[in-house]
Amino acid sequence: MTREQLVSEIRRKKSFLCIGLDADITKIPQHLLEEEDPLFAFNKEIIDATHNLCVAYKPNTAFYEAHGVKGWISLEKTINYINKKYPEIFTIADAKRGDIGNTSKMYAKAFFEDLKFDSVTVAPYMGSDSVKPFLEFRNKWVILLGLTSNQGAYDFQFIKDADGKELNQHVMEKASAWANEEQLMFVVGATKAEYLSEIRKVIPNHFLLVPGVGAQGGSLSDVVQFGKNKDIGLLINSSRGIIYADNSIEFANIARAKALEIQQEMGGYI
Amino acid sequence: MTREQLVSEIRRKKSFLCIGLDADITKIPQHLLEEEDPLFAFNKEIIDATHNLCVAYKPNTAFYEAHGVKGWISLEKTINYINKKYPEIFTIADAKRGDIGNTSKMYAKAFFEDLKFDSVTVAPYMGSDSVKPFLEFRNKWVILLGLTSNQGAYDFQFIKDADGKELNQHVMEKASAWANEEQLMFVVGATKAEYLSEIRKVIPNHFLLVPGVGAQGGSLSDVVQFGKNKDIGLLINSSRGIIYADNSIEFANIARAKALEIQQEMGGYI
Repeated sequence: MTREQLVSEIRRKKSFLCIGLDADITKIPQHLLEEEDPLFAFNKEIIDATHNLCVAYKPNTAFYEAHGVKGWISLEKTINYINKKYPEIFTIADAKRGDIGNTSKMYAKAFFEDLKFDSVTVAPYMGSDSVKPFLEFRNKWVILLGLTSNQGAYDFQFIKDADGKELNQHVMEKASAWANEEQLMFVVGATKAEYLSEIRKVIPNHFLLVPGVGAQGGSLSDVVQFGKNKDIGLLINSSRGIIYADNSIEFANIARAKALEIQQEMGGYI
Repeated sequence: MTREQLVSEIRRKKSFLCIGLDADITKIPQHLLEEEDPLFAFNKEIIDATHNLCVAYKPNTAFYEAHGVKGWISLEKTINYINKKYPEIFTIADAKRGDIGNTSKMYAKAFFEDLKFDSVTVAPYMGSDSVKPFLEFRNKWVILLGLTSNQGAYDFQFIKDADGKELNQHVMEKASAWANEEQLMFVVGATKAEYLSEIRKVIPNHFLLVPGVGAQGGSLSDVVQFGKNKDIGLLINSSRGIIYADNSIEFANIARAKALEIQQEMGGYI
């Protein structure tokens, strides 16, 4: 998907919501456990109930890999279902991969050719040659970890060099020279919204994928205030707050209601 | 596997060789393409030919994920084969994972419970809570990226703070407080052997997993000179130099010959 298509979907749906499909067998409604593929059955209902309120879905690969081959099948069915039924949706493999060049190329094949995601999240520690193989795919995106939403972000991401520049700023500055804003986004946690204005000085135009609104405590209005740009430039992720809002037979309707609340707030910002 | 068991295997086999099972469908011998599962067939022959010359196998998950569900099946068959037939071998899922706490826990389940690897490689960028869930498993290991063997390592891993301490030193120093040398190893590339004496001042006792000998240009004798400790403390990985030394019907014998060369050199260092 191109940036132009993504921006146009955001304006059409009046939403920049991304829903995290972190399907956890211990948290999904009990009645789904009777299904042949409970994780896919869960995702399918969530997707059918929310697809016109969000612009992106983001399955986190960990939740599928935890079930081995069966889990990988659920992931494959999920991405195929979205691509076939809702091709206007931007898809994110939240995989946080990254390896030496010939190996990153294999990950790129896995997520762009085999599973046909639009984008994949990548960890920056190994530098340029670990990221570039993903950028060789046309109309596919790298979403690089910039500043993450967890407590552990403070261990290394804020280390300052002699000039006071933090590691996360090094990452965003350097990586923005590897690809333009048509192919590269950054993960910036909502729990660090106060840093967004600084970050926007370095990367004014790139889209940001923002986790941590809701369950992790970040505020949507803060993120919009400090992070929005002329093309909106934000994908705000919510996972647990939407998909696990209820675990009765009504779960998909309740998930829709939660997504609608967020979409309506977003509508006011577009 | 415990550290004691690993050290004892190294002394018994007079080897600290790890063989990287990066099974690439475009590089394995043509005649294997007729097999039902060519990647597993390749690994099985390599393993049977080399198991008494090495102490560890390290499949890189990217090479399996590139084939989707089929690839994940090949990976599962490979680890099951090693665990059943050669339980004395230390197994490494070279996955370079790392995510927020509840998600890293899912990756830990994937590699320690579902696939039953002894260890998994983890990327440090997201800090402590992305690493700790892996450490909750008894006799399982985290192998954290310290200083990698690729060119991109120079992008961020050498950034110095105001006191001159490099990011990779921060990572190794801080992480060595999260777990002791019974559960934590570090990846340090052989292409940076000159840094090993500095690194050994920070982490004298931890095992190091050292990629980059052979195809990537690192030297075994340099690594031993600067990196060996009282328990050897090294696992030297070779992938392409062994497994793709030949692609005829004789490939496994040639791989064995290459592994034997390395094992014999290693024998002199033990």
